[in-house]
Amino acid sequence: MAFSERISRLKSSLIREILAAAQRPEVMSFAGGLPAEPMLPKVEWADMPLSMGQYGMSEGEPALREAIAADARSLGIDCDASQVLIVSGSQQTLDLASKLFIDPGTEILLEAPTYLAALQSFQLFGADCLSVPQEADGPQLDALRQRLEQHKPAFAYLIPTFQNPSAVRYSEAKRDAVAALLDEFGVTLIEDEPYRELVFDAGSATPIVSRLKKASWIYTGTVSKTLLPGLRVGFLIATPDLFPHLLRLKQSADLHTNRVGQWQALQWLGTEKYKSHLAELRDFYRVRRDAMQVALEEHFADLADWNVPQGGLFFWLTLKQPLDTRTLLDAALKENVAFMPGEPFFAQPEDNPGYLRLNFSHISPDRLGEGLSRLANVIRQAQLEKAA
Amino acid sequence: MAFSERISRLKSSLIREILAAAQRPEVMSFAGGLPAEPMLPKVEWADMPLSMGQYGMSEGEPALREAIAADARSLGIDCDASQVLIVSGSQQTLDLASKLFIDPGTEILLEAPTYLAALQSFQLFGADCLSVPQEADGPQLDALRQRLEQHKPAFAYLIPTFQNPSAVRYSEAKRDAVAALLDEFGVTLIEDEPYRELVFDAGSATPIVSRLKKASWIYTGTVSKTLLPGLRVGFLIATPDLFPHLLRLKQSADLHTNRVGQWQALQWLGTEKYKSHLAELRDFYRVRRDAMQVALEEHFADLADWNVPQGGLFFWLTLKQPLDTRTLLDAALKENVAFMPGEPFFAQPEDNPGYLRLNFSHISPDRLGEGLSRLANVIRQAQLEKAA
Repeated sequence: MAFSERISRLKSSLIREILAAAQRPEVMSFAGGLPAEPMLPKVEWADMPLSMGQYGMSEGEPALREAIAADARSLGIDCDASQVLIVSGSQQTLDLASKLFIDPGTEILLEAPTYLAALQSFQLFGADCLSVPQEADGPQLDALRQRLEQHKPAFAYLIPTFQNPSAVRYSEAKRDAVAALLDEFGVTLIEDEPYRELVFDAGSATPIVSRLKKASWIYTGTVSKTLLPGLRVGFLIATPDLFPHLLRLKQSADLHTNRVGQWQALQWLGTEKYKSHLAELRDFYRVRRDAMQVALEEHFADLADWNVPQGGLFFWLTLKQPLDTRTLLDAALKENVAFMPGEPFFAQPEDNPGYLRLNFSHISPDRLGEGLSRLANVIRQAQLEKAA
Repeated sequence: MAFSERISRLKSSLIREILAAAQRPEVMSFAGGLPAEPMLPKVEWADMPLSMGQYGMSEGEPALREAIAADARSLGIDCDASQVLIVSGSQQTLDLASKLFIDPGTEILLEAPTYLAALQSFQLFGADCLSVPQEADGPQLDALRQRLEQHKPAFAYLIPTFQNPSAVRYSEAKRDAVAALLDEFGVTLIEDEPYRELVFDAGSATPIVSRLKKASWIYTGTVSKTLLPGLRVGFLIATPDLFPHLLRLKQSADLHTNRVGQWQALQWLGTEKYKSHLAELRDFYRVRRDAMQVALEEHFADLADWNVPQGGLFFWLTLKQPLDTRTLLDAALKENVAFMPGEPFFAQPEDNPGYLRLNFSHISPDRLGEGLSRLANVIRQAQLEKAA
């Protein structure tokens, strides 16, 4: 069977295997990024017009595009509804952007670590990934300037607000500096913000795209983290030089996003009901975040370092004694604990051992301590064996 | 701005322009392929479980996969649910298949004419398209054998049941012959069947994939033509050598198909309610098909030849005096009539002038005669001008 060249770059199913194993009810899972079931809002369908069953526009529902543009403008993004494309979850933005920009060997710029599914999509299309190390307040600026001086990446893909996996939120200063650098070198920005509304502490800074003066950009978001992921409704907003191409690629990919989910999303965006749901969501996750922090201090203080995430769904642990955390998986699953190894979040996994991504939103609080205790023991055992 | 090489192959927006123009209420449109609004079934949502709002499996909902596999087995397709992938409308099957098989220059085999959006997807990925002329009962077998002897296409893409645009239904003999040829040359079949259930006269023959003995295959269908296109729920069934790759490509494209639409589709498939809806749909469209045939005989008998479609949504007209039907569009739209020129349905448009695709499902019967009369006059005028 002769497949396309890109199929040789389809990654192994390690992640799928972890998530499949994490489905077993006896497994205490820190692996996925699922919203907590109890916080899925009850939605009404009775008022949906029958016309939502007909084919729709590739751009998306006009009223939803208007609502998203208005929301974006309130974040300082200079845009109107004609720049909004409704997509089948923000994962689809990555697929469309890959198609728009990437040929085999095309250089792109990523954070290290970065979002795993983005990395896989870009690599599937053959991207050559340049990385900029992530610090607690955003990317290392010297490294970023150096990459831009030495290369001409087709775009920079950044997740500046509660990144999955590192939970980093860029500081105001770094947002400004990154925008200035991208403008200076004329590099397109793809800014991915699924977690902006999941903020537990202080308010979030405005998006980097709102600070750009010249560079082209795509800004993408979703209702998956705050409403219902099963709707598969996300959006992108793009500068007018990019939008027509993205629209045609969307049409070729799946004609248009399902209208049922779009209609439901529109019942929420911008409403008081949504604001109050978001407030409840933040309270709920803040409690889980705090409980995770307490349990981590109890079980991981001697093993790892971490920052307390101010938003999003993950803790990112740096082992004091690095080892390839993928080698811990079998032992952890034997103990009925699932977690996400850090290596696959890097374009160069072998060079970046010793990180773990732990989700705190999905596990029930009464199993949290036991799960972390078992995971810590698996790590201790592995480090003993390595030392021996 | 440096885009990927494939963007140079993104086709012009002629079709989008036609469909946009056809939206104007004063336009009598034979252009689109929309189901008739009055035949969209009333659907209930009250019983949908809240869990459908959570993330789902990339494969699709297990119960829906079972129902689709059972349906396929009843058509003679040897398969089980593990081979079923739920996709975001069957358009997505084309995107996934393009990714699986096509590098720039990859040869593929198509009917001439073929489905426009498939052609565009394959060409976007750089396919080199081989064509086999379509006859009233299916492809010219000599031409098919010759192509297979002289080339090694990555797959053959066929729409054997009420093809869009030609309305051709392959005969039993040609289905067998095509299957035997694909087996003989070991060429993968992609069989696209959106219109199978929209049959107005005799019953349909079984799919070609059910007749294959050795070749790999993908069979794809949708609920868009028989239930609600706005749900964006389609499916593919694939041989086990192809399925794992398609699944990973699906995950990379949009994680999974929206669960709300999947749940609704499951409320219908295989039920008595659905059977009775399909019977009503066939009766409704048969009346429209018959009215179109009467009106065409009145207005087009001297201008074109055609076969009466036994299913699907289109008449395919062959002008007795060929001309590039794209040149008729402006004049037709000035007369508030929209239609689809035939040339874009061919990999080699310039070599295939003189066809028109006319949809009969969407236009209201009281405007049918007036619309066809105006369109016939536009053609007569153009032929006079050409002769002058």
